[in-house]
Amino acid sequence: MAQKPSLPQGTRDFGPLVVQRRKYILQMIENVFKKYGFMPIETPAMEQLSTLSGKYGDEGDQLLYKILNSGDYFKKLTEYQSRAMGHEELDKTFLPSFDNTIENLDAKRSLSFIAEKGLRYDLTVPFARYVTMNRNTITLPFKRYQMQPVWRADKPQKGRYREFWQCDADVIGSNSLINEAELLKMYDEVFSLLNLPVIIKINNRKLLSALATKINAENLFIPITVAIDKLDKIGLNGVSDILVQTGLNLEQVDAILHFLSLGKSENPLQEMTQFLGDGDEGKLGIQELTQLHTYLSLMNPLNIIQFDFTLARGLSYYTGAIVEVQSNIGNFKSSIGGGGRYDNLTGIFGMPGISGVGISFGLDRIYDVMEEQNLFPENLKTTQTQILFCYFNEATQLKALSLCSELRKCGISAEIYPDITKKIGKQLEYANKLQIKYACIIGEDELNSDQLQVKNLINGEQHPTHLTSLINLLQA
Amino acid sequence: MAQKPSLPQGTRDFGPLVVQRRKYILQMIENVFKKYGFMPIETPAMEQLSTLSGKYGDEGDQLLYKILNSGDYFKKLTEYQSRAMGHEELDKTFLPSFDNTIENLDAKRSLSFIAEKGLRYDLTVPFARYVTMNRNTITLPFKRYQMQPVWRADKPQKGRYREFWQCDADVIGSNSLINEAELLKMYDEVFSLLNLPVIIKINNRKLLSALATKINAENLFIPITVAIDKLDKIGLNGVSDILVQTGLNLEQVDAILHFLSLGKSENPLQEMTQFLGDGDEGKLGIQELTQLHTYLSLMNPLNIIQFDFTLARGLSYYTGAIVEVQSNIGNFKSSIGGGGRYDNLTGIFGMPGISGVGISFGLDRIYDVMEEQNLFPENLKTTQTQILFCYFNEATQLKALSLCSELRKCGISAEIYPDITKKIGKQLEYANKLQIKYACIIGEDELNSDQLQVKNLINGEQHPTHLTSLINLLQA
Repeated sequence: MAQKPSLPQGTRDFGPLVVQRRKYILQMIENVFKKYGFMPIETPAMEQLSTLSGKYGDEGDQLLYKILNSGDYFKKLTEYQSRAMGHEELDKTFLPSFDNTIENLDAKRSLSFIAEKGLRYDLTVPFARYVTMNRNTITLPFKRYQMQPVWRADKPQKGRYREFWQCDADVIGSNSLINEAELLKMYDEVFSLLNLPVIIKINNRKLLSALATKINAENLFIPITVAIDKLDKIGLNGVSDILVQTGLNLEQVDAILHFLSLGKSENPLQEMTQFLGDGDEGKLGIQELTQLHTYLSLMNPLNIIQFDFTLARGLSYYTGAIVEVQSNIGNFKSSIGGGGRYDNLTGIFGMPGISGVGISFGLDRIYDVMEEQNLFPENLKTTQTQILFCYFNEATQLKALSLCSELRKCGISAEIYPDITKKIGKQLEYANKLQIKYACIIGEDELNSDQLQVKNLINGEQHPTHLTSLINLLQA
Repeated sequence: MAQKPSLPQGTRDFGPLVVQRRKYILQMIENVFKKYGFMPIETPAMEQLSTLSGKYGDEGDQLLYKILNSGDYFKKLTEYQSRAMGHEELDKTFLPSFDNTIENLDAKRSLSFIAEKGLRYDLTVPFARYVTMNRNTITLPFKRYQMQPVWRADKPQKGRYREFWQCDADVIGSNSLINEAELLKMYDEVFSLLNLPVIIKINNRKLLSALATKINAENLFIPITVAIDKLDKIGLNGVSDILVQTGLNLEQVDAILHFLSLGKSENPLQEMTQFLGDGDEGKLGIQELTQLHTYLSLMNPLNIIQFDFTLARGLSYYTGAIVEVQSNIGNFKSSIGGGGRYDNLTGIFGMPGISGVGISFGLDRIYDVMEEQNLFPENLKTTQTQILFCYFNEATQLKALSLCSELRKCGISAEIYPDITKKIGKQLEYANKLQIKYACIIGEDELNSDQLQVKNLINGEQHPTHLTSLINLLQA
């Protein structure tokens, strides 16, 4: 019996029109990346689990896709489970600590027989690995872009897929805030080109760090950030609850809530300066935001770029500027892009002291917003074919094939209906369904004449023409 | 201690120059695909194992990458192994028959708890699944192209990687040999555009089928094909040995060897007709090759297209024309492309009676040959940046940033060296390493003047200019 095929949950096929539209977005992003001097790299879909694990927090680790080792892993596993292998022998090999869904130590040990590789979870960690492995050939500062799919075993929902594309630009090996300014301007340019108005929100992790210091909770900096990051989803009360659970007292929580209420005035940076007082880190954060503002004002951004002190970002490796992009139209208010500065990402791979800053475009979410808002150009169609050659029999088929070849030689997208047995109506129906604009029907008359009949299938007009005129028409 | 990072065996990173060169090949292929009326689709990297397994023969099944199920599969596995679950309960769920490396039935049953998804092994089976699932919205004949990576747990060696790209074009729902002719001409055009001379070898599976009938070994058609497919690697003696092991007698083996010796004369098809005699299938095969030759002669191919009766192709689903492409220069003689006609690929998914024909370009092998033969254009560089702005201090930095922005507004790829602390020599070194052609150094003089100093870093010449002239120079 034939199988009824299906797709893995959270994954999608893309038909011709969707692919063209996705490529349209990718092309806009790539053009801007190149214009700002970024260079492309690509990394493999599979990475060692040791490269990926421990980099994305507990939640992230659980969402890694793991790949079964090839060969007879099962035999080895059974051997271990029946204790033909001792723990010591086993622990000499790689003991995975990455799967926090598995509490049992035996189970963890078993896993090392089963999986050593995983699918890429983002493009930042593979980039840090790439930089570390290619440190001797890379010129710093290194400006790279990377546009590839990533995989997360997350619960699928609107705007969240298990396979999705990220388009990242990062500068590594430079501390200058010009990088931040240029990356923000790149967001601005891409979304302007796509006719998608956005709000670009910026903040600086140093302000959050100064806040933690001010309330004597430096050791809770990461949990405080993670709590604030959930503000959009759970509101101020929800954030308060988490902060209390984290072990903060009411006075501390009040200070955090006050911090989150800042920035609505005419001069948000002055307001923040007054609140944070004299600490070095707060001053540095304010200074960085001020400098960034100076650079940006020279670049004339077209979209709204605003300070947002409630912006925290989930990932723990950010240390300076952070940014998030939201659509300014439609209902989808999750971020369609984000990024920030990280001071030591390559340190985990043995290359310390390298600062980097990057942004990411979420292709699939941008696509969803643009489709909802009907922002794709009309001229993106399923096919690029401009003309279909139709015919009646073997003799006219050969003439049609020959003419079709002539057009292709001139770079024109053209097709000949392949099957000889179909009626002309069937052939024109094919052209209509694919929205091919012109049809050229080759009959007996055309066999012995240079004249061709070309029909415009949109307005129904049909005119006699010659090959050279037809080529001129289609090349125009 | 920091980890020393590494890549999974058989996978590769691609740096900027390699990515640009790969994109160059992809672009040429895609342009030709579009010119011939093919439309893009994309399918997910992950497929259900039930979609992939049993489609690539025993060897192929063993090379599938399997993905661990998410969640606590291990608990269920242990439950089963300790017999808390019975076989009946288990066999109601999916019992995988796909892993032939595992002979033990218990082990097979265990596997169903561990993995239900796998990575795409080629683009043809996902395409057949796509067509079946989208049968109600697709217009036939459907001409699709697809350019994506595939994964095989094969032993890595020269030209064989575990992650590699295929670029496929297929026509489904048409029996016309015009499709075969156009696909062959597409090979011809792409390799002409790439300046890579090739030999395109064609054959027809119906001749091989007629051969099997002639020697009364219809039931051994597939093993005979598989043996002949190994000819390049193991020679005629090797093929003979396999054929004898398959159960053929010496007379039958001699007939096969004679068949393989045909086609070297002036008129190979006549030679083959005489050999095969009166059977319908042989006649049909010859007729198809003759018709294909007629169509091709109207299209003026530039590369060698030749009949090769020793061509067999490994995959079992081919039923008509088969094709393989070899580089005609250099030492790498493995195929860099191949394809053929299959009469019932969607049948396995419940959509019978649909014929298709397709070709595939092996991006990674084409890349390897082109690199060895030095065939990439000189103008493919690591960066597209045309000019670097250099400066001395905060004031000149702002002026440089402002000028850099002006150039970008005109669509020019430009960079400003980001860090203020570096000396000019360091900044120019960056430009030289990245082969950026021009540098514009902003000093005190430029702060209060419209005049700019632009240095050509290739010939060392430096001239004063103005912004508009600079824009004209770089846009030219």
